[in-house]
Parts: sequence; C-alpha cells; structure tokens
Amino acid sequence: MEFNFDEHPHKRLNILTGEWVMVSPHRTKRPWQGKVETVNNTPRPQYDASCYLCPGNTRSDGSVNPAYTGPYAFTNDFSSLLQDTPEGKVNKSDLLQATSERGICRVICFSPRHDLTLPQMEVKAIEDVITLWQTEFKDLSTSHSWIKHIQIFENKGDVMGCSNPHPHGQIWAQSSVPVEPAKEGVQFLKYYQENKKSLLSAYLEVELESQERVILENEHFVALVPFWAVWPYETIIISKRQVQNILEFTEAEKTALAEILKQLTIKYDNLFETSFPYSAGMHQAPVNDGDHLEWHWHMHFYPPLLRSATVKKFMVGYEMLANPQRDITPEQAAKKLRDLSLVHYLG
Amino acid sequence: MEFNFDEHPHKRLNILTGEWVMVSPHRTKRPWQGKVETVNNTPRPQYDASCYLCPGNTRSDGSVNPAYTGPYAFTNDFSSLLQDTPEGKVNKSDLLQATSERGICRVICFSPRHDLTLPQMEVKAIEDVITLWQTEFKDLSTSHSWIKHIQIFENKGDVMGCSNPHPHGQIWAQSSVPVEPAKEGVQFLKYYQENKKSLLSAYLEVELESQERVILENEHFVALVPFWAVWPYETIIISKRQVQNILEFTEAEKTALAEILKQLTIKYDNLFETSFPYSAGMHQAPVNDGDHLEWHWHMHFYPPLLRSATVKKFMVGYEMLANPQRDITPEQAAKKLRDLSLVHYLG
Ligand SMILES: O=P(O)(O)O[C@H]1O[C@H](CO)[C@@H](O)[C@H](O)[C@H]1O
Ligand SMILES: O=P(O)(O)O[C@H]1O[C@H](CO)[C@@H](O)[C@H](O)[C@H]1O
Repeated sequence: MEFNFDEHPHKRLNILTGEWVMVSPHRTKRPWQGKVETVNNTPRPQYDASCYLCPGNTRSDGSVNPAYTGPYAFTNDFSSLLQDTPEGKVNKSDLLQATSERGICRVICFSPRHDLTLPQMEVKAIEDVITLWQTEFKDLSTSHSWIKHIQIFENKGDVMGCSNPHPHGQIWAQSSVPVEPAKEGVQFLKYYQENKKSLLSAYLEVELESQERVILENEHFVALVPFWAVWPYETIIISKRQVQNILEFTEAEKTALAEILKQLTIKYDNLFETSFPYSAGMHQAPVNDGDHLEWHWHMHFYPPLLRSATVKKFMVGYEMLANPQRDITPEQAAKKLRDLSLVHYLG
Repeated sequence: MEFNFDEHPHKRLNILTGEWVMVSPHRTKRPWQGKVETVNNTPRPQYDASCYLCPGNTRSDGSVNPAYTGPYAFTNDFSSLLQDTPEGKVNKSDLLQATSERGICRVICFSPRHDLTLPQMEVKAIEDVITLWQTEFKDLSTSHSWIKHIQIFENKGDVMGCSNPHPHGQIWAQSSVPVEPAKEGVQFLKYYQENKKSLLSAYLEVELESQERVILENEHFVALVPFWAVWPYETIIISKRQVQNILEFTEAEKTALAEILKQLTIKYDNLFETSFPYSAGMHQAPVNDGDHLEWHWHMHFYPPLLRSATVKKFMVGYEMLANPQRDITPEQAAKKLRDLSLVHYLG
C-alpha cells in the first residue's frame, strides 16, 4: 500500500502558522446522531424597527444611527478594547504575567438594508464596503500611532456568535500584534529572508499550476481551499500582487475583490442552500511599525458547516486539547465549491 | 488611573503554551441578543435500547457490547486514526507538506448506566474509570512502540459535539506529538532547564499562596481557574506531586483524583443548574520517547457556557483570526465556582 492523502489519515503543515492539521479522509462515513442546528430561513424585512443597526434607529447607549444610505461605521457600544486603558504590567516570577492593552472596536454596517448579506449585494455596493474598510484602516492607523494591528472581520450567522442579522462586520484595532497574525508574521519573514519572495506568492504559483484546490480566479485575486484548511469549507482569498494592506489596492483591484467576494459567498450560500455562516477576516501587516516587505494581504473564511445547513463540525476535545482535525479533504471541499453555480439559489 | 486587571482590558500569558489571551473585564455588561442553546433536562432511563453504548446493545459495525458492569473500553467504529496507515510524505517546495499519521482511537464508557454522568457517579466508580484509563494507557504505550502520544479526553454535552449522552470519553493514541501538547512540552522543558523544577509545581505554589483562583484542594490535587484561562469557566486540575503520566499515581492519589473530579463536576452542574457541557482531557508526557523529567501531569476543562445554561461564549471572528478573548476575569469565575455547593443540585 502506498501513502495517498486522498485516502489515508495524515497531517498537513499550515505554512502560515507553522502548525500541523490532522486530516481523516475516511471519516466522512461516520453517521451523525449529535446536535442539529436550527436554521431560520424566513426572509427579513428591508427595515426592522427593533434592529439597533438599521438607519435612524436608537442604539443601546442612546445614540441614534443617521439615515445612512451606504455602508456606515461607528464605535462599538460594548467594545472589548478601550482607548483610555492605563498602561501597566504585572509579573509574578514569570508565572503570572499580564500587560495592559489599548484598542478601538468599530462596527461596520455593510448596507442600510436589513435583509441583505454580501452575496446578495451589488458588486458596486461591496466596493463601497471595501472603500469604507480602507477609510477606517487609514484613520485608525494614522490618527493613533500607538495602534499596531488592525483586525477587519465579519461573524456571519448566529451559529458564529453573531447577535444581529443586519449585514455588518467589525474592526478591532489594538496596541500590540495578536497571536495569529504574529505567527503568520514569523512565517512570512522567514520565507522572505530565505527566498527574497513572498510566501503566499510562491504558494499561489503552486496552487494555480495544480488547480486542484482553486475555486475562483480573476485578474487580481484567487479564492482557494488552502492545502492545510482546518474547517470543512475553509477558504482563503489571496491577492495576486503582493501588498501589505488594503490601502494599496488600486481601483481595479477593489472591483476585482468585490467580485470575488460576491462570487465566493454566493457559492457558499448555494452549497447547502442556506445563508452560509462563517467568520471571515483579513490578515495584514502590522501598522506604525516600519516596512513589512515580507507581508502579503489575504482573507480567511472559517465556516463551521460540515454536512448540511444543520450539521456543523465540532472543534472540541481532541481538537482543543491536541490538534485541529478535519474529516473531508481540502481537495474534496474545493471540488464541491468549484462545481457550484455562480447564480444565488434564491435567484 | 493605575492599571488594574480586575477592571482594564489586558493580555495574560499562558505559561503552558507561551501564547497570550485577551481579557475584557468590563465586557460582561454587554446585552445578549444572539443564539440561545436549547437544553434538554429530561432525565434519561438507566438503559436505552437505542443507545449503541449501553451494555448488550449492537453497535453500528454489527458488534455487540458485552453485558459490562463497570467501565468498558473498545476501539472506535469510526476512528479518525488507523493502525494500518502506510508511511509516507509529500513535499512540494516546502509549500505543500503532508505526512502520514498512524493511530488508535478508543471509546471509554464510564458506566453501564445510561442516565449517569461523572458528578452523579460514586467516587469508587470514578476510581474504576481512572484504573481503566491507566490500563488503556499502559496497553497502548507498551504494545505499540510507534505510539508517541496518548490523548485521554471527554466531550460532554451536545453543544460540545458529543453525539451520545451515555457517559463516555475517548482516547486517541498516535504516532507523533500533536500541536497543543508539543507547545506545552517546549514550555515545560525551558522552565525545567532554567530552574531544575517543574513549571507547574512552581505555578501551584504561587496559586496556593494567593488562593484567589483556587476552587478545590485535597491532599494530592488542586483544581483552579488558571491565570490565563480562555473559556469563561475553564479550570485545570494539577497533581501536587510532579508525575509524567497517569501510570505513576498511587492508590491514594487515584482516590484523591476521583474525589476532586466528582467535586469539580458537581460545582459545574450547580453553576447553571444544568448538566454542564465541557471538553476535558489530560496532558501527559510523550510515550516511548525516553524520560521527560520536565513534564507534569494535568487535566484541562474547557466549558463553553458564559451566562446561563443557554448562552455560551463564542470563540469566533476576532478569536479565530487574531487572539483568544474572554469577557469575565478568571478571578470572578473562580470566586463563583468556589462559592458553589458540593451537593449536586439534583440532590
Ligand atoms: O468522535 P465523536 O464523539 O463522534 O466526535 C466528536 O469528537 C471528536 C474529537 O474531539 C471531534 O473530531 C468531532 O468533531 C466531534 O463531533
Ligand atoms: O461583538 P459581538 O458581535 O457582540 O460578539 C461576537 O464577536 C466577538 C468577536 O469575535 C466575540 O468575542 C463574541 O464572543 C461574539 O459573540
């Protein structure tokens, strides 16, 4: 018997974190008798008087949203990170170590319309979201020299902890580089120093040559299931041109990004004919920290669903205590996503 | 204003992994409008004819469980890891790297009784589970020299991906050391080389002196909320005597472990008056790999609930992409758990 990663249990290296992922290709045959999620597919109204994100409505801190007509950003009323945190450190024999962290948390409404999600928005409207992300990124990094990292992300669906279906994402900007981007920074730098080239540019070449894990490609971006994907339908969008952050995108790149975002999220919705839940977000170079020529902008999508709209993958005991583990191969997932229509199932 | 970790957002160092955790003490005030889990508190029968774990019943592969009367172990019918995996490697320019992994996955029924859970079992019966864990650990490590790591764990509750409420845990033994224990191994070794002492012995001294995060203590074990806990009510059980693995426990230590396991899980059930879901598991030294004098046995509990039986903490967008983050402090969580009764709420 020859080792074959379509069939045999194995580990794959995540080159962005340097950590391994377990893959059990044969395990999809397992019957599922566990938790079944509820799905709410009832259409939402365009405006919901009880939604604190809809235009004109009052938020929990008493402030009133303007009658906004495009994407709209404001500071989170329940921010995890605060600007006025005093600086300080605790260190007890190196065993108890704590250090203060400052930050700003922003909420980004993608649209005034309560009933839409990214795949249902016009490409032009998604471009406007990208423009707002750029404006926020610029404001946060230039007005606050203490900000070192800006995390742009979206939690979509209540199964991903999203407490309001109004289309929105978040930005958490903070005074240090958090764990995951820090791991990636180490890997980017190592590769760049050894090869004078971006790690993700080299990786993209290999993927474009094989096509096995590629889902979508346009002039400026590629969407694919990474070789080391953990979540069943995890994907990554990589810019063909190596840029350090979203501010560097040209108008043509912005349009291409809006297009691939729309197409990828349409495929996601079509997979199980449901509004597909995920957490997604960009990884970008640290800010206010000099050049980071090693960094390469990309965007991760971590969706929990495994078999249907109601059965998700649980990252629990073994995964939390030992090692992330997946049940279908990235190649199988990529084929499924690639074969899906670019027309949204709701028409 | 002075920095104070009861009030101000900060990061804490997990000395076992070397990674930071974000803490937002002020964030508990956030109203929750998101997903509410369903709870099934209906009592279960002592025997369920449709349960594939109950004594005498037929499993999905056709085999029949014996009429077992104590804890009972068998090989998982849908094992993630297989013994007969052929060896092999794939490496494409260091960008695509995969390597075969062999393993054995076991299921451990804690009791023949379908209706029980650990907190409801007699101390003596929990001791029998510990004895079976020892037997399994010994068999797996001595009969298979290729096995390097043995993960003993339990997923409890459907919210933690457990597909059968019959009290049971799992053991995944495999040919390499997975990511999380590997991180701990690095930290243990570093501390041991620098201090000629176990990292967790040193940590335990600090915690026992302060008492702030300690929940339970007996002659041989301490249960506490670690300073760097990620999950709202995360705890760790640490053995007072530094041992590398479960085989080294004396009879007295086994009884003490059974006692603290029962008491901790009773407190958990009492917290929200529900059968408290969690993933729990031991971290132990690698096997068939020489001495590991740096290692110190311990057991983690990762429970998802945050505010009630139905509202859990979501480790999603920011947490997946950037950094684990928690909303109440470990000290607040420890105080709540410490103050709870040692009598199970069901009497
Ligand atoms: O093996 P089980 O109980 O069927 O499955 C459960 O535990 C496993 C190990 O943590 C996970 O990989 C699965 O996602 C989870 O549903
Ligand atoms: O900020 P929200 O949307 O209220 O909260 C959601 O996203 C946050 C960032 O990933 C998480 O910390 C919360 O657990 C989750 O419920």
